Amino acid sequence: MAIVTVLGAGYMGSAMTVPLSERGFETRLWGTWLDDEIIDRSKTAEHPRLKQRLPESVRLYSSSELDNAVEGADAVFVGVSSEGFVPVFAKLVAALRGPVPIFTLTKGFAEFDGEVDRASRIAKRIFATRFPASDLDWTSIGGPVKAYELARHIPSPAVYGTNSAIAARLGPSFQTDYYKIRTTSDLASVELAGTLKNVYAIALGICDGLYEESLPNNYHNLGALLFTQAIREMAEIVGQEKGSATTIYDFAGVGDLHVTARSGKNQRFGFLIGRGISPNDAYRQMLAEGELAEGYPAVKAGERWLRSRHPDVRNRLPLFRALYRITYETAPPEPTLKEAITELFGRV
Amino acid sequence: MAIVTVLGAGYMGSAMTVPLSERGFETRLWGTWLDDEIIDRSKTAEHPRLKQRLPESVRLYSSSELDNAVEGADAVFVGVSSEGFVPVFAKLVAALRGPVPIFTLTKGFAEFDGEVDRASRIAKRIFATRFPASDLDWTSIGGPVKAYELARHIPSPAVYGTNSAIAARLGPSFQTDYYKIRTTSDLASVELAGTLKNVYAIALGICDGLYEESLPNNYHNLGALLFTQAIREMAEIVGQEKGSATTIYDFAGVGDLHVTARSGKNQRFGFLIGRGISPNDAYRQMLAEGELAEGYPAVKAGERWLRSRHPDVRNRLPLFRALYRITYETAPPEPTLKEAITELFGRV
Repeated sequence: MAIVTVLGAGYMGSAMTVPLSERGFETRLWGTWLDDEIIDRSKTAEHPRLKQRLPESVRLYSSSELDNAVEGADAVFVGVSSEGFVPVFAKLVAALRGPVPIFTLTKGFAEFDGEVDRASRIAKRIFATRFPASDLDWTSIGGPVKAYELARHIPSPAVYGTNSAIAARLGPSFQTDYYKIRTTSDLASVELAGTLKNVYAIALGICDGLYEESLPNNYHNLGALLFTQAIREMAEIVGQEKGSATTIYDFAGVGDLHVTARSGKNQRFGFLIGRGISPNDAYRQMLAEGELAEGYPAVKAGERWLRSRHPDVRNRLPLFRALYRITYETAPPEPTLKEAITELFGRV
Repeated sequence: MAIVTVLGAGYMGSAMTVPLSERGFETRLWGTWLDDEIIDRSKTAEHPRLKQRLPESVRLYSSSELDNAVEGADAVFVGVSSEGFVPVFAKLVAALRGPVPIFTLTKGFAEFDGEVDRASRIAKRIFATRFPASDLDWTSIGGPVKAYELARHIPSPAVYGTNSAIAARLGPSFQTDYYKIRTTSDLASVELAGTLKNVYAIALGICDGLYEESLPNNYHNLGALLFTQAIREMAEIVGQEKGSATTIYDFAGVGDLHVTARSGKNQRFGFLIGRGISPNDAYRQMLAEGELAEGYPAVKAGERWLRSRHPDVRNRLPLFRALYRITYETAPPEPTLKEAITELFGRV
């Protein structure tokens, strides 16, 4: 039996153990130093986030047991938060005895040596420090897969973007009746969409927050406008990294933005902003409730990344720029979003 | 001042009088024989569907006053239901003294001489009987524009698909601060998307109906899967008519499906089916409440049209086929939708 280790015992990492164990893999779940209580409780009770027991066969490892968790693993899933990615990946690389295919559920940009870049590129640099002669077999996982639903067998389409032939062969072995996998070589689009959908879901959430009370059930034209513009801008951005717009028009873009904008932490973060709470207060308030709005730091990381790598494309991203102004430059959401729309369509 | 006549005093036709009159057109609203009461009441009170007064400057015409309503009109908007399209368009053509650009808000296929086809083609045939030497200047209007919101100035993006240079020039003159217009020559995609989004919104509604109670707020992965598949299939279908998939990935497809799937009559029709009501009963129940689920006859018309015009593409439309089976062949929604998904991704 092949061994798969999942790093990170939050929502997504933990939920992945459901299809993995049901496909017969020896499935190990390692919790970071922030997850020790989760790991401990999950041994005898419901997983506190997923609100259900993990499959019995899943082996649980606390933060001090990383070496044991990855020993002999045939594949490693990384399911930590964006902020935790670099330190956890560095620990993983140090614990590995040899190269192993990495499947990452973690969204986003990462920062390393003062530079913001796609997590896959930063992972490559970290990996090369220990295995300079080997390629990193890397897969970014996208698509509309809310962890809570995955753990309950609700049909969910995942997209595996990979530059590795080994990973492309291995990926489909994780598919179940409810966890559907499509594999693509368009790693850039899958990886970037995973972050960008969190960013743009904030805009949809702001729209909900602004109008839900004054116009209950009647701000959907504007929501659809923002949704479509988000897809346009995501296609623009991935194009800068030679990704294909068609990946964005599919499960990893349209599908994932759909689920993220309808529910989830980033939608809620935007909603609070729409209701008049400052971005920083909204982020802290959610954090105090154990909810991490990853889109908030992602807006900032995205802005830094675009400025350094693709400064010209920002002109074609009025919605992204509006979001940055709202979340980091105290621009009020009400006229700022509408100004972006006017920029799009022109004045009358 | 140019004169614009709107035919049909239901939701959409009536809402269009708001931007038209605010842009300074002499705006006339003609009600069909089904709308006489609406026209009558709207003279002194709220429009009974839109729940607000129409702009004061809008001139109202009852069903017997069609000749007066179109006399001297520089453009005619058609906003009747799909079923009313052929009889109303025939009456319009009979009442016209010369060709005039047509902007149609009516969605759908139409039936004429025992044949189902795109409304634009059937309109052309009817038009040619009276004006054989003239081209029909035709524009199909799509995009996420819910009438109730348009009438309340909520920013809404419309897409004008046209084969007419005159209409392409005229269209943008209808734009306001909240009614945003993009013009495209891809008439086929805009016209077909207008119907197909009603069809596929039923699938999203079925998903809501099936799972809302047992899994409140937690069937979004499946919803996103169906949403994305709907977009894929819409792109397949318009491709058969030389339409461009990129039109579907934009406001007329992604945007309009987004608003239609989130609220609206076809979503509700699907919802009732998901809750166990037969399609026919659901349709009648809604009709008794004054709500027309246009997607229901559109599924049937679409099936007939595909079988006669593009029979091969049906193999690539598992969701459409599932919808047809559910709505017209008494297939139960619960396994039927999931079987379509299995067909898409393959068995494990």
